[in-house]
Amino acid sequence: MIDNRKALLILAALLMPASTGAQPASSNVRGAEFPKIHADLRVTFQVKAPAARKVQVMPGGGANGLGKGPFEMTRADDGTWTATIGPVQPGFHYYWFLVDGLAANDPGSETYFGWARQSSGIEAPDAALDFYEAKDVPHGEVRMHWYRSQTTGLMRRAFVYTPPGYDSDWKTRYPVLYLQHGSGESERGWTAQGRANFILDNLIAAGQARPMIMVNENGYATRAGAAPGPGARGNEAFTEVVLNDLVPEIDKSYRTLADRANRAIAGLSMGGGQAMSAGLGNLDRFASIGSLSGAGGRNFDLRTAYNGAFSDVAAFNKRVKLLWIGCGAGDNLFGGATALHQALEKAGIKHVWWEGPGLHEWQVWRKHLYDLAPRLFRD
Amino acid sequence: MIDNRKALLILAALLMPASTGAQPASSNVRGAEFPKIHADLRVTFQVKAPAARKVQVMPGGGANGLGKGPFEMTRADDGTWTATIGPVQPGFHYYWFLVDGLAANDPGSETYFGWARQSSGIEAPDAALDFYEAKDVPHGEVRMHWYRSQTTGLMRRAFVYTPPGYDSDWKTRYPVLYLQHGSGESERGWTAQGRANFILDNLIAAGQARPMIMVNENGYATRAGAAPGPGARGNEAFTEVVLNDLVPEIDKSYRTLADRANRAIAGLSMGGGQAMSAGLGNLDRFASIGSLSGAGGRNFDLRTAYNGAFSDVAAFNKRVKLLWIGCGAGDNLFGGATALHQALEKAGIKHVWWEGPGLHEWQVWRKHLYDLAPRLFRD
Repeated sequence: MIDNRKALLILAALLMPASTGAQPASSNVRGAEFPKIHADLRVTFQVKAPAARKVQVMPGGGANGLGKGPFEMTRADDGTWTATIGPVQPGFHYYWFLVDGLAANDPGSETYFGWARQSSGIEAPDAALDFYEAKDVPHGEVRMHWYRSQTTGLMRRAFVYTPPGYDSDWKTRYPVLYLQHGSGESERGWTAQGRANFILDNLIAAGQARPMIMVNENGYATRAGAAPGPGARGNEAFTEVVLNDLVPEIDKSYRTLADRANRAIAGLSMGGGQAMSAGLGNLDRFASIGSLSGAGGRNFDLRTAYNGAFSDVAAFNKRVKLLWIGCGAGDNLFGGATALHQALEKAGIKHVWWEGPGLHEWQVWRKHLYDLAPRLFRD
Repeated sequence: MIDNRKALLILAALLMPASTGAQPASSNVRGAEFPKIHADLRVTFQVKAPAARKVQVMPGGGANGLGKGPFEMTRADDGTWTATIGPVQPGFHYYWFLVDGLAANDPGSETYFGWARQSSGIEAPDAALDFYEAKDVPHGEVRMHWYRSQTTGLMRRAFVYTPPGYDSDWKTRYPVLYLQHGSGESERGWTAQGRANFILDNLIAAGQARPMIMVNENGYATRAGAAPGPGARGNEAFTEVVLNDLVPEIDKSYRTLADRANRAIAGLSMGGGQAMSAGLGNLDRFASIGSLSGAGGRNFDLRTAYNGAFSDVAAFNKRVKLLWIGCGAGDNLFGGATALHQALEKAGIKHVWWEGPGLHEWQVWRKHLYDLAPRLFRD
């Protein structure tokens, strides 16, 4: 039997035009109607710019899971510009509006630190995946932790995930994953873009990952007194910060298991290179290392790479608990990452190799963490 | 004796044009040269927009500590637009570039959630004040704390400041200040714009404030199932969230002193109104209440206001440990706030009244917290 309320709802659904199925993106600011995501993952963007002559939607880097831009927007009489694009790829994508050529943020979307600036971002849902959603499971916290770095002479800020129960059980100590962002991003990325806290919450609730602390720092660091030149990346002191400032600070401030077996370092893209460099160069400190869509292995010489870390295969395999390497098949770095995997495999270096669909984007890195975290800190 | 290096430095200083004294603002993103702040607090903004016909600097709301805008920018041959404005007021100021009329964020600045969107912001230093700077004192943490609200049916996020030593002393319990943002802002404001964590760090280190927990939530909340109309402010369920969801969640998750004497609620602007309403309406839960540049007291009827909370003056004065009201003299709300203060004073309602120079801006609210926090949770 259908009651009146249900009948009204059915009637309303029948009368609705198909387009009203479109919903504001979860990445919209409170109350913003646009961007809207349609059921088939087309996305409608809209912005009011009456005096502009040309407005376009520009994916971060010119092309990402939104497709290859720029996408032209059409002007209505009231000065509102609109474009519907896609279907787009599920996941998180950076974008801007090009307003007469200027990259402007969408006032309707949250901003995320990427491309060395605050950039608009949109979250396109994945009907098949929910491992990074905030579910009804116990939630850890993400803590902004300020400390002074001797290396840089400046205050720095780490984002530190503490697992559910950290505050209620005073005795348990936890292993630590140091997990880094990519070029042009910051310590905020793994929480805001990556949803790493929810990924770990869900894995821990399901018993699939050990409860762990996760630390995200800023990959940029310049030694005290040194001014990076205009060409410098400004990340030259990062390993020193990790070894001499960050790890001691975390071990002092949190209930960590402060030995190499319980300490991992990983990162994405630039952060993958940093993790390989800091990790393989300091195996007395880190027993597990991960490179997510990181620098590849073309022209890779196993005898000399990373100061000879791989030169003694048997010793390496005995000493390193986990070497994790992964890349999306649609990523420009996929060829290089595959070459690294093959070189390691040929040499008999034990490692985990992840490949799957995806671009150089956060949706792949979420999947990477989802694969990596359960393998960490196992006996 | 002057060594060679020192001589070179002195020579370099003599040769520098005066304008090179200008420094990138502390609110700039890493590596951004502009906006630049001059020693006299003039500010130079710059943006590249070759195809734009008109570019202006627009203070948040049209006028704030940057002055009354919009300020015209001048185009150079390479399409770079520049304006030097000021001297500006010290403190934090929202702004945008108006690019052919569109409010675009400055790629050189951090963004801050204000005006119901991610807005550019600039920090102008105050040579006379450092109470909100990150000093070499023990630092508390700011924790992102996720929880499910029964009132809204949704996940919510609180920012929770825990004082230095919270994690090393397992037995101490702390009083709690619930401190809210203003209209169009979010739970992030008191950390990012307000630097409340550093203010409390400094006060606690100096022994001027009791170590306390501070909670910042989002002032917007709509009951589960209720869709706010386009005209609704969307904050109608905030008091219910505080009373039924947030306070129990905080008392469950942190080592709080969970009685009214050790619980305060305050807020700025809209948040001041919310604090007065939630606090005065629930004196069994809160013994201290603060309104920072909040709604005023014109046409204020002491017998009926806040459901008669002030009607029994003697009872009120006995029950309420602190009623704190303040406003900047340059604020449009100053007249109303003054009227409230005078009405309370005339009636014999004990309260603290703060007045001083300043607009409806974060620099005033930083000063408010600096005055308010030391008065809280005293016997």
